[in-house]
Amino acid sequence: MKVMVGGTFDPLHDGHKRLISRSFELAGRDGTVIIGLTTDSFARRKTHPVQGYANRKSRLEKFIKDQGFFAEYTIEPLSDRYGSATDVEFDALVVSEETLPIAHEINMLRREKQKRKVDIHQITCVLADDGRWISSTRIYRGEIDEHGRLLQKR
Amino acid sequence: MKVMVGGTFDPLHDGHKRLISRSFELAGRDGTVIIGLTTDSFARRKTHPVQGYANRKSRLEKFIKDQGFFAEYTIEPLSDRYGSATDVEFDALVVSEETLPIAHEINMLRREKQKRKVDIHQITCVLADDGRWISSTRIYRGEIDEHGRLLQKR
Repeated sequence: MKVMVGGTFDPLHDGHKRLISRSFELAGRDGTVIIGLTTDSFARRKTHPVQGYANRKSRLEKFIKDQGFFAEYTIEPLSDRYGSATDVEFDALVVSEETLPIAHEINMLRREKQKRKVDIHQITCVLADDGRWISSTRIYRGEIDEHGRLLQKR
Repeated sequence: MKVMVGGTFDPLHDGHKRLISRSFELAGRDGTVIIGLTTDSFARRKTHPVQGYANRKSRLEKFIKDQGFFAEYTIEPLSDRYGSATDVEFDALVVSEETLPIAHEINMLRREKQKRKVDIHQITCVLADDGRWISSTRIYRGEIDEHGRLLQKR
């Protein structure tokens, strides 16, 4: 199966790892995963500083290599909410609970363009120790680490 | 991965086949698929007559065998909207666009019961030749066949 997923992935936390892992599981041994990685200018809308594209890309590649996934993959620049997902043929889009609305927007836009709608796989966000979602913003603020462990305030 | 899916599956049309096929793909070679098949009394709420449980079960088993899927599977009786999906541990629920609300209800009920929420994989319904969804009701009415081909009115 051909699967698409997108994000900024900085810092690469357990929620991101789950999103990527599920995408490869879903694609299967003979499948393909297209990872849309936000460009630096698009990532600038985040409320916290973000590492450069090349660093984020290397970090993702290292994670994928370490996991030993079978499916082929491509990391491509994502410079808006949809990237190539409204235009190319693929089977399923993998999103988190937070980004589910984007998936519905993509399917609406595909329909307007007379393209086949795609399956939507919504993963459940990984929870931090306090029962709230792990997010890059919370990690940046120093509330939790990338595994969702609570950090003591200094 | 352990995947759950449910339905009445009568007549077994191309939309159902897609739902079942995706469930096995998602489960993967070493995974498990639990198929909830509505009981005769629960299926009676349908607006059209439905074949008996044993017949519907054999038909499903034949389809699964013919496809040569790898994952293990179990067909279990489903006597309400949720079956065991609010109680057992599993990874992902596969639903159609039509049954997506049930998936959200299941995750809400799981949270109330302090259980981990599951991933939701929403497949895109298969369209009939007229661009509308294939459904058992339409087949029963004689509008389309199980592959979504339009039937001539007598």
